[in-house]
Amino acid sequence: MPKLIDPIERKQLIAQATWKIILEEGMEGTSVRKIAREAGLSLGAMRYYFSTQEELMLYAEALVYERLTDTTAAIFQKEMPPMEKIVNVLLAFLPPDNELETEAKVRLLFKVHAHHKKAAYVEQQDGALQAIKNILSNLILLNVLKKKLNIPFETDRLIYLLDGMVLDAMVRPNHTSRERQRELIIYHLNSICKEKINL
Amino acid sequence: MPKLIDPIERKQLIAQATWKIILEEGMEGTSVRKIAREAGLSLGAMRYYFSTQEELMLYAEALVYERLTDTTAAIFQKEMPPMEKIVNVLLAFLPPDNELETEAKVRLLFKVHAHHKKAAYVEQQDGALQAIKNILSNLILLNVLKKKLNIPFETDRLIYLLDGMVLDAMVRPNHTSRERQRELIIYHLNSICKEKINL
Repeated sequence: MPKLIDPIERKQLIAQATWKIILEEGMEGTSVRKIAREAGLSLGAMRYYFSTQEELMLYAEALVYERLTDTTAAIFQKEMPPMEKIVNVLLAFLPPDNELETEAKVRLLFKVHAHHKKAAYVEQQDGALQAIKNILSNLILLNVLKKKLNIPFETDRLIYLLDGMVLDAMVRPNHTSRERQRELIIYHLNSICKEKINL
Repeated sequence: MPKLIDPIERKQLIAQATWKIILEEGMEGTSVRKIAREAGLSLGAMRYYFSTQEELMLYAEALVYERLTDTTAAIFQKEMPPMEKIVNVLLAFLPPDNELETEAKVRLLFKVHAHHKKAAYVEQQDGALQAIKNILSNLILLNVLKKKLNIPFETDRLIYLLDGMVLDAMVRPNHTSRERQRELIIYHLNSICKEKINL
């Protein structure tokens, strides 16, 4: 008797195979054929779950954000000081040595790819951008920010810091460590906060 | 009589066709065939200038940095206040509305691509990274930096800011304008300088 397969689980496995191929071959080097081979499925089986490559890519991208968003939500629910939560949320978006390392890298590749794909980049679907906006709003709520900061500029600086750190971790892995990333994030937060963060 | 063709000029035209294809099709979607068509050359003629696609890609990448480095060198030689030069050098690396817009975008795509290409990323060949290091060293020379800054961290923050801004300009062109980029760069420099920059 054939094993019953949970279709959601199967779709997630296909998405994970997609991430692997994207990391190895690049976005434009990715094909349904390669993904099928990686997932150990026939092209027919693939078509059962996703009728087009575009549908598969959209699902694979959405799943990246779902994973990252779930993780940041879980961090916010933990018992730890608010600033520690903020540092950990930012670290969740960064390779290497992160359980979401693949998701973190693939997120950047999807973002880079957005400039020439047909489906336009949608700000509201960018989970990283939304996370950064939340962080700024949390910092305001906590009343820890220096006076006279320009919040839209601080939002942008933090997004750019995050995306730049992901890219750097990908091209200069030797320059990057979890400890250094943590220090740099705290350094940046210290530069915009009234008092030195005590973690 | 056939027109005499300067081989360096021809190689540069091929590199420019390469940039165009990279922007349209992505790094992995780029092929010698597409570049030849864009450049209006036969595959045979292409092979006369570059024996392999890898050789062509290395040349196309080197030319991006040559253009950017020439531009930053020219900015440093102009008659203007030092801080204005620094702002303009940073702006030279950013799309949009920049005469080096294509170079600025392609630079980021080459950098992203570095994580899975065979030839390793070489820090010394990264003209943007070297420009940022120069800027930090200039700021130290000018004695304008706040005390207690961590220079390696400030170098990284500025690289991340730059790369993040390029990516953002590519995916959120409506969020970006030259004026806003200039303001954000001055905002960032103000945050690390002792006195407010007066430009």
